[in-house]
Amino acid sequence: MLNRAFDNDTICAISTPHGMGAIAVIRVSGSHAFAAVTSVFQRNGKTMPIEDIISHKAFYGHIIYKGEMLDEVLVTFFKSPHSFTGEDSAEISVHGSVYVQQRLLQVLIAQGCRMAEAGEFTRRAFVNRKFDLAQAEAIADLIESESEATHRVAVNQLKGGFSKELQMMRSKLLEMTSLIELELDFSEEDVEFADRSQLKALLHETLAHVDKLKDSFRLGNAIKNGIPVAIVGQTNTGKSTLLNALLGEDRAIVSDIAGTTRDTIEETLNINGILYRFIDTAGLRNTDETIEKIGIERSYRKIQEATIVIGMLDATKDYESTLSAAKEILSKVDLEHQQLILCINKVDTLDDQGEALLGLLRQDLDDDDILVICLSAKSRFGLSDLYNTLKHYQPLSYPDATLVTNVRHYEALLHASESLKQVQQGLEMNIPTDLISQDLRQALHYLGSITGEITTDEVLGSIFSRFCIGK
Amino acid sequence: MLNRAFDNDTICAISTPHGMGAIAVIRVSGSHAFAAVTSVFQRNGKTMPIEDIISHKAFYGHIIYKGEMLDEVLVTFFKSPHSFTGEDSAEISVHGSVYVQQRLLQVLIAQGCRMAEAGEFTRRAFVNRKFDLAQAEAIADLIESESEATHRVAVNQLKGGFSKELQMMRSKLLEMTSLIELELDFSEEDVEFADRSQLKALLHETLAHVDKLKDSFRLGNAIKNGIPVAIVGQTNTGKSTLLNALLGEDRAIVSDIAGTTRDTIEETLNINGILYRFIDTAGLRNTDETIEKIGIERSYRKIQEATIVIGMLDATKDYESTLSAAKEILSKVDLEHQQLILCINKVDTLDDQGEALLGLLRQDLDDDDILVICLSAKSRFGLSDLYNTLKHYQPLSYPDATLVTNVRHYEALLHASESLKQVQQGLEMNIPTDLISQDLRQALHYLGSITGEITTDEVLGSIFSRFCIGK
Repeated sequence: MLNRAFDNDTICAISTPHGMGAIAVIRVSGSHAFAAVTSVFQRNGKTMPIEDIISHKAFYGHIIYKGEMLDEVLVTFFKSPHSFTGEDSAEISVHGSVYVQQRLLQVLIAQGCRMAEAGEFTRRAFVNRKFDLAQAEAIADLIESESEATHRVAVNQLKGGFSKELQMMRSKLLEMTSLIELELDFSEEDVEFADRSQLKALLHETLAHVDKLKDSFRLGNAIKNGIPVAIVGQTNTGKSTLLNALLGEDRAIVSDIAGTTRDTIEETLNINGILYRFIDTAGLRNTDETIEKIGIERSYRKIQEATIVIGMLDATKDYESTLSAAKEILSKVDLEHQQLILCINKVDTLDDQGEALLGLLRQDLDDDDILVICLSAKSRFGLSDLYNTLKHYQPLSYPDATLVTNVRHYEALLHASESLKQVQQGLEMNIPTDLISQDLRQALHYLGSITGEITTDEVLGSIFSRFCIGK
Repeated sequence: MLNRAFDNDTICAISTPHGMGAIAVIRVSGSHAFAAVTSVFQRNGKTMPIEDIISHKAFYGHIIYKGEMLDEVLVTFFKSPHSFTGEDSAEISVHGSVYVQQRLLQVLIAQGCRMAEAGEFTRRAFVNRKFDLAQAEAIADLIESESEATHRVAVNQLKGGFSKELQMMRSKLLEMTSLIELELDFSEEDVEFADRSQLKALLHETLAHVDKLKDSFRLGNAIKNGIPVAIVGQTNTGKSTLLNALLGEDRAIVSDIAGTTRDTIEETLNINGILYRFIDTAGLRNTDETIEKIGIERSYRKIQEATIVIGMLDATKDYESTLSAAKEILSKVDLEHQQLILCINKVDTLDDQGEALLGLLRQDLDDDDILVICLSAKSRFGLSDLYNTLKHYQPLSYPDATLVTNVRHYEALLHASESLKQVQQGLEMNIPTDLISQDLRQALHYLGSITGEITTDEVLGSIFSRFCIGK
């Protein structure tokens, strides 16, 4: 538990996006907030007395500083603890002139406020227990959300579902740990307060839960940063043409010269609210050119990282080469964890043989997990088939499950999982109770660090520094 | 008076600046605003009944649409007529995610709102007589204000001082016009309801007032767009070097080749809260080069437009050429309306002869209205002297007088002035009463058009289209 005297000076910041707009909002929070704001706030030509403040009410008036009217404003006061930060706060809605916004900050600073640091309002809210650390992080994710899926994950986390799951696990483990530690006090008497079989069952259940959360990171991360889709295939099969067709723009340089793409090109695309991260790779072929070789090596690595692999085949080649190219791609894909979509490209050059080729390939590969479709990236034929196929693999199929999207949470879960596994082994091997207790405490520590029940100033500093100013 | 049935459908828009921020505000206004917002607004898991609305109170809750939580929000309702627009309005404060902002607009549109046009909130406020047209225009100016001076002029206009002056003039003229028009009804009886000497006195007074406002545009415009300062002089005297030194950056291309600057370069600079618009001109010299000739002609025109002219002289030239160059600049400047500052540049190349040169030149020019200073634009020597000299001509010396900054207002005042002059002439020449009445009506029309007492949809359309969306 964070347990330091919190610096309760009064902070101010522009909370709305930067620049000019119809209106802008300046936030003030801290014990001196009401005094600072009312000292420069006049209603009907008279300075507003602090006693007149009603919480959550918008007051119309003017900011007057040294006899000069700065702006006509709406001020809403929020009395502690009923505010975002939990402190006395005010939100001043001004005309969205850059000059007015900057000037009002100067005026507030002259009244004894100071500029808020990034995320300082949210940090104060966390310190005042308005929400836990995982929820505070969800606010930052929510603000950054650009797609329906990232927004949904952030909202779920903000609601506190994830936090509750962690707390329940923690309190059960904590109870068990206390019983075990009680045994230590009576160690010479050889008693067992904690029922070992019950402990084992609890461990099994908790570990499964922690691992489920931990494993959700792959999907959560994919949602946050885009589901990685690698586009691979031999040179000149039209990989870059496909990327351009998907993006609807000329992102990758396309030419008939084999080996045009050397760098891997990554572009995200929002399809039906889901972010996909398409990775165009260098064509796979034997080459002596050093730079191209490096590109091909990278292509292999990118295949491993991808959730979906699009394998490009060339319809203009003879069937034997096409089949061997398909098999080469297949050999690089882990069908258990990855989805392979084989695309027979350039079918516009064939008359009606596209479907025949498709049938033949499906038959020869003989694996229901591999999808094969026909398309022409150049003429955009078959692109809708590809979109529909991709949609099939969107993670919204289980929207209500908690997804871990934060690397910090993932690492904490990873450590918790390892500690719990050591407790399990320890129990199997009848290891002394004090060692088991240590591992349990470790697991409790890691689980607690996610919601901020256990944390340090340094951790908080690094978390809140990624917030924007004014939040 | 605007007299049309106003389309009272409900509009919505993002009112805060574009982009991501801690929070963003979405405004809703119109007869359907409360129904639209409450239908998707839940407090403690229950949809808020419209009857629970309290004006000017911020309600905490969630936007829920089709079972999905979009965001936790603060909603402040404003009951008609006590809102910015005068209509039922709501301001929804959301987390400043671009996705959330866009999505909320979509949700509101699904509830029957439509996207507001630029300036539509302010236009509704004008139609509902929350303020007049000149004040509405002051809001746009206020939002765009970037310096203390532009802000001050906009705030003064927003306060309505200008509008009151116009209304007072108008009501006096209107009274007189009514009396004159009454005479028309009794034209056969040859009566004079309107005392002619009183009318003449009123006309004299009003015309002086209108002309004072009209003439303030020169200063008002200078404040709004920057006080025009032309930098002129022969080729290679260091005009561009001075501009770069003033701006602290390499804006103009500087070279030793005479005639480097062909286009006139304009840059605004905020010095002590006042905006100056510096105009670097082509060097004045006899040339056969066509492009350069055009540049020199432009230089002469720019000199005429400037409020302040900085004449650059070259300290490395012999005294006779310097004196004749100074006289040539002097011949282009209208000392009655313009301030001339002669700068003897490159004084770093002289040893101690700068002051002597200065004295000589002052003596030979023998005009106290001309300021002469020494400087070295290259080494920034003497720049602070120049700043101080410029400050001397800042218009803040009479901050409380009404300044006209708007071209539309200026043109209306120009027309009103002309009409009033015709009334004056008509009275002198004993022209028939009905013709005098016509000219008076013209003057009334132009004065009324400024505050919008007389206006057309077309005029309103063009005024409000320069506002930002959401205002």
